Amino acid sequence: MKRYPIRRPALEPLEVPAQHKTIYPPPHDQVVKGRFKRRLGPALGLTDLGVNLTTLMQGAASSMRHHHSANDEFVYILDGEATLVTDAGEQTLTAGMCAGFPKGKKDGHHLINKSDRPVIYLEVGTNNLPDLIHYPDAKLWLHEDEKGRAAFNTAKPAAQAAAKAKPATARKKKKKR
Amino acid sequence: MKRYPIRRPALEPLEVPAQHKTIYPPPHDQVVKGRFKRRLGPALGLTDLGVNLTTLMQGAASSMRHHHSANDEFVYILDGEATLVTDAGEQTLTAGMCAGFPKGKKDGHHLINKSDRPVIYLEVGTNNLPDLIHYPDAKLWLHEDEKGRAAFNTAKPAAQAAAKAKPATARKKKKKR
Repeated sequence: MKRYPIRRPALEPLEVPAQHKTIYPPPHDQVVKGRFKRRLGPALGLTDLGVNLTTLMQGAASSMRHHHSANDEFVYILDGEATLVTDAGEQTLTAGMCAGFPKGKKDGHHLINKSDRPVIYLEVGTNNLPDLIHYPDAKLWLHEDEKGRAAFNTAKPAAQAAAKAKPATARKKKKKR
Repeated sequence: MKRYPIRRPALEPLEVPAQHKTIYPPPHDQVVKGRFKRRLGPALGLTDLGVNLTTLMQGAASSMRHHHSANDEFVYILDGEATLVTDAGEQTLTAGMCAGFPKGKKDGHHLINKSDRPVIYLEVGTNNLPDLIHYPDAKLWLHEDEKGRAAFNTAKPAAQAAAKAKPATARKKKKKR
């Protein structure tokens, strides 16, 4: 495939370092051990839109199964075979297929690589704050307040319902994650 | 490539009808005559995130050259050769390359297909309202108010600066476009 030299606002995604860090507390961090994210959104100066080019090695998951109160999510499979898990069960997604997870829809979802090859996909989401992320299998909640400060809880936080979610940059401080 | 039967929240993008309508007034509608959009966001129930799988036939552009006051945009080239035009000039993007356009950055941008094959790309953006879209070459402004009502102007509307942009669903009425 031809590659031309490019400059901003264009980007060669493979120039962005692949990170495998996670904020999950042990033992949950093991779930995403083989997950590598290239954070394209910040590299392009985007603030309200999160964009990652993500690779899942064999056995790795995109995340713990979860759903968001305040953020839409979208994934598009670029290479490999990904298993999408939701309340309804499993299905296999291949290159060119996609999935969407509307905010407020309480159906825990994640991708797992159950194949013998890496899975590469594009994941995009809004960066609205505050947000409440529920992990039904782990019985955990992650609350991100209106300044983007994140805290895990083993019970559903009560305060979250009060504030109306806004784009990260509509707040005084930007979300830092 | 293998294709497995899938169901929501997954989606086979090619099942979504390709639309070529535009709200551009003549003669500007000619610019996007060979543009076909599959609107994946609404098909997946997403409201705050816009997602299109778009095809540009030979000679077609993604839009008039423009920039947004309140919405981040991202494109990822899936197939073909697209010419990205910004204030700095032209560059050629091929499959696997991407570009991002932060809200408030006043650098008019669009993609043109100057090749002899179709260009296919994924375009994603936030759906914040209100928004002001400036088309510098056409000397037009498109104002979308906080209810998503859109109006073209030949001069910059003054009222827009007052309201702070929020996700479409944070408003009483959803954006309908």
